[in-house]
Amino acid sequence: MPADEDSPRRRRLLSKDRMEGFSDGVYGFAATLLVLDLAVHPPGTPLQQLLHAWPGYLAYVVSFLTIGGAWLLHTALTDQLARVDQLFLRLNLLLLLVVVFLPFPTGLAADHLHNTTSERVYVTLYGLTLLAIRLLGSALDAYARHEHLYTPENEGGELHTDQRKFLPVVIGYVIAILIGLALPVAAVALYFGIAVYLVVPFRETARALRRRHSSRQ
Amino acid sequence: MPADEDSPRRRRLLSKDRMEGFSDGVYGFAATLLVLDLAVHPPGTPLQQLLHAWPGYLAYVVSFLTIGGAWLLHTALTDQLARVDQLFLRLNLLLLLVVVFLPFPTGLAADHLHNTTSERVYVTLYGLTLLAIRLLGSALDAYARHEHLYTPENEGGELHTDQRKFLPVVIGYVIAILIGLALPVAAVALYFGIAVYLVVPFRETARALRRRHSSRQ
Amino acid sequence: MPADEDSPRRRRLLSKDRMEGFSDGVYGFAATLLVLDLAVHPPGTPLQQLLHAWPGYLAYVVSFLTIGGAWLLHTALTDQLARVDQLFLRLNLLLLLVVVFLPFPTGLAADHLHNTTSERVYVTLYGLTLLAIRLLGSALDAYARHEHLYTPENEGGELHTDQRKFLPVVIGYVIAILIGLALPVAAVALYFGIAVYLVVPFRETARALRRRHSSRQ
Amino acid sequence: MPADEDSPRRRRLLSKDRMEGFSDGVYGFAATLLVLDLAVHPPGTPLQQLLHAWPGYLAYVVSFLTIGGAWLLHTALTDQLARVDQLFLRLNLLLLLVVVFLPFPTGLAADHLHNTTSERVYVTLYGLTLLAIRLLGSALDAYARHEHLYTPENEGGELHTDQRKFLPVVIGYVIAILIGLALPVAAVALYFGIAVYLVVPFRETARALRRRHSSRQ
Repeated sequence: MPADEDSPRRRRLLSKDRMEGFSDGVYGFAATLLVLDLAVHPPGTPLQQLLHAWPGYLAYVVSFLTIGGAWLLHTALTDQLARVDQLFLRLNLLLLLVVVFLPFPTGLAADHLHNTTSERVYVTLYGLTLLAIRLLGSALDAYARHEHLYTPENEGGELHTDQRKFLPVVIGYVIAILIGLALPVAAVALYFGIAVYLVVPFRETARALRRRHSSRQ
Repeated sequence: MPADEDSPRRRRLLSKDRMEGFSDGVYGFAATLLVLDLAVHPPGTPLQQLLHAWPGYLAYVVSFLTIGGAWLLHTALTDQLARVDQLFLRLNLLLLLVVVFLPFPTGLAADHLHNTTSERVYVTLYGLTLLAIRLLGSALDAYARHEHLYTPENEGGELHTDQRKFLPVVIGYVIAILIGLALPVAAVALYFGIAVYLVVPFRETARALRRRHSSRQ
Repeated sequence: MPADEDSPRRRRLLSKDRMEGFSDGVYGFAATLLVLDLAVHPPGTPLQQLLHAWPGYLAYVVSFLTIGGAWLLHTALTDQLARVDQLFLRLNLLLLLVVVFLPFPTGLAADHLHNTTSERVYVTLYGLTLLAIRLLGSALDAYARHEHLYTPENEGGELHTDQRKFLPVVIGYVIAILIGLALPVAAVALYFGIAVYLVVPFRETARALRRRHSSRQ
Repeated sequence: MPADEDSPRRRRLLSKDRMEGFSDGVYGFAATLLVLDLAVHPPGTPLQQLLHAWPGYLAYVVSFLTIGGAWLLHTALTDQLARVDQLFLRLNLLLLLVVVFLPFPTGLAADHLHNTTSERVYVTLYGLTLLAIRLLGSALDAYARHEHLYTPENEGGELHTDQRKFLPVVIGYVIAILIGLALPVAAVALYFGIAVYLVVPFRETARALRRRHSSRQ
């Protein structure tokens, strides 16, 4: 039995499907919970109240795109896994713990973006959470590479597109967190830019445009 | 590697299953969140309070049917996809962002349908959200057609039933949004009618009735 | 194309998997939302507050078991479907609309079970919702039978266990609703009994006990 | 028909997939609901408020890890099931009922950890819920073993790692519940330790470290 526990066949048994199902559920719920933080408050006409709630919409869109971007990376990553092991499942759980946490700083940042005394603290917490999601996503990839969990033929190939963005994104987050200590609204604008950068597939769009020109059958 | 990135085999690898799982979760959760907006308020006897909350029930049913209709269209669409690409996944994310947003205007419209000063603003936001869901759903279909993501044998055939309803629905939404600027309750009634129109399969019902007459073995 | 729309092959194409995934998500969320209604209120010591909240726990358990029982029936039903059609998907959507609604009367009944003036109204609404879930579940089964959606070999066989309970349960609900007009707490006790009756597999338990006696290899 | 109901083929028909999908949804959602209990309250500067909310973060992390650990055990268990029967589905439903309940005592414990009069009661309820989740998880495993629901080749083998932790964990919970009657904060620290113990795969980590030393091709 102890010898068998070490065998690769045994470790292959652990279900990748359920990890994906559980992760999809958690990503989806976390994205949906964000909408619960949206609210309008007096004073003002209804339209003014609605427009005055713009930090909430901004935080909602940034957080949704960040979770969406993290989900896209997660999908690209697990698509290529030949197997998962016990440690990978736990690392994934740690990532999900931070993903589920995101609605909390999102709500704080959205509620207080008009309030100069508290917004610095909450926007900083928000930025640290976004950074942690990115770092843990890359830790999953690094672990999978190190333990050869990917299928041999395309070990990590598929992930190049997303991982190419790793360093710029981390640097962007660090800069935004530092800016946020002085100018919280500017930091949120930067988080929005990073989220768009994460989600928009520039190369694929360029390729699609090139294809449209070359092949028109 | 750059050459390989362009190959059709590579783009086929992207998991359609996980997109469906994530989308099902988000649709299901957005539909469920709607019930959180239901509440009864004094004054009145309990029965009066319960009956007085009718705008909430109406908004709940309209939103649930709209999300259900959007999910049916989404299912019919992805059922026929041979593959998905990076841009399709992002367009789908954009659609989900608006689907998840729907509980917010639903709650606002439900809380304020008795309140003449604010109901116009909230019902208009509600209508614009419904319209955006419909337009993004059709954008997904148009993109899939353009990029030949459907399986060749039934490229778009299955979707005819739903897509045939596209123009009437969009025109209906635009009319309802305009009416809502003057008569918000009438607009909500119209949204209800459109949701029923979206969900009820008139042709299939007619066929089922015809079958019942012709073949009784 | 119109001829093809009528063909059985075409109708078989509609994805049963996604209906199951969406339904599982909605059942799971609705069951989980119920816990949000639990709360403790002053006055009293913490333990007294906790014990005083018993109607909430009762409503939670009854609703969870009812949703669980409905999910078990739904699983047994869809397990045997050879295919689904457009009308079946819509009937399923209608069932889910009522399942998602259940947390609303559950919360009302839980909050007001101490309050004699309002509890009759809320417990009646609660009972009507439970009844509607049961009736729509049986409508799904009846439709699947009528349209021959089940696989031929076990057309409806698997469902006998659950469907055998249909008439007692419906009669039980009607009696409980009538009792609830006079004695709401007695009605909730009856709903609890029905939920246990729905979920406990008496025959399977008896068989398991018999097996334990006869075959001990 | 009654004879057929007893046949193994018939009991094998019950869908394991849907039980997994429903369970994944409920686990994921229960984990996500925990974040709704996080909140900051005056008085103090924003940073003080944020730091003062530490019992909420602690309860969030402990509950998330406990649910994550229960999900890991559930996955390991169902991975090896050859089939499920009616009683297994019901036992699973009972387990999920307690898992979904967890956010309620988590919220109570998080809100009252500063409040000495109520924290004993809430931390005790919290501990009893954690213990119930563990006991029901083991009941599922015991039932599956007794009814030979596992695949023959690895009957229970895979579960050894997790089940080896059963007795220490149950003893740990009982000790923590008793300690919590006098020192609630110490009990929460102990629950944290147990959750980490549950989730961290000590043997796998040791093996991974050994592998890193021995095989470096």
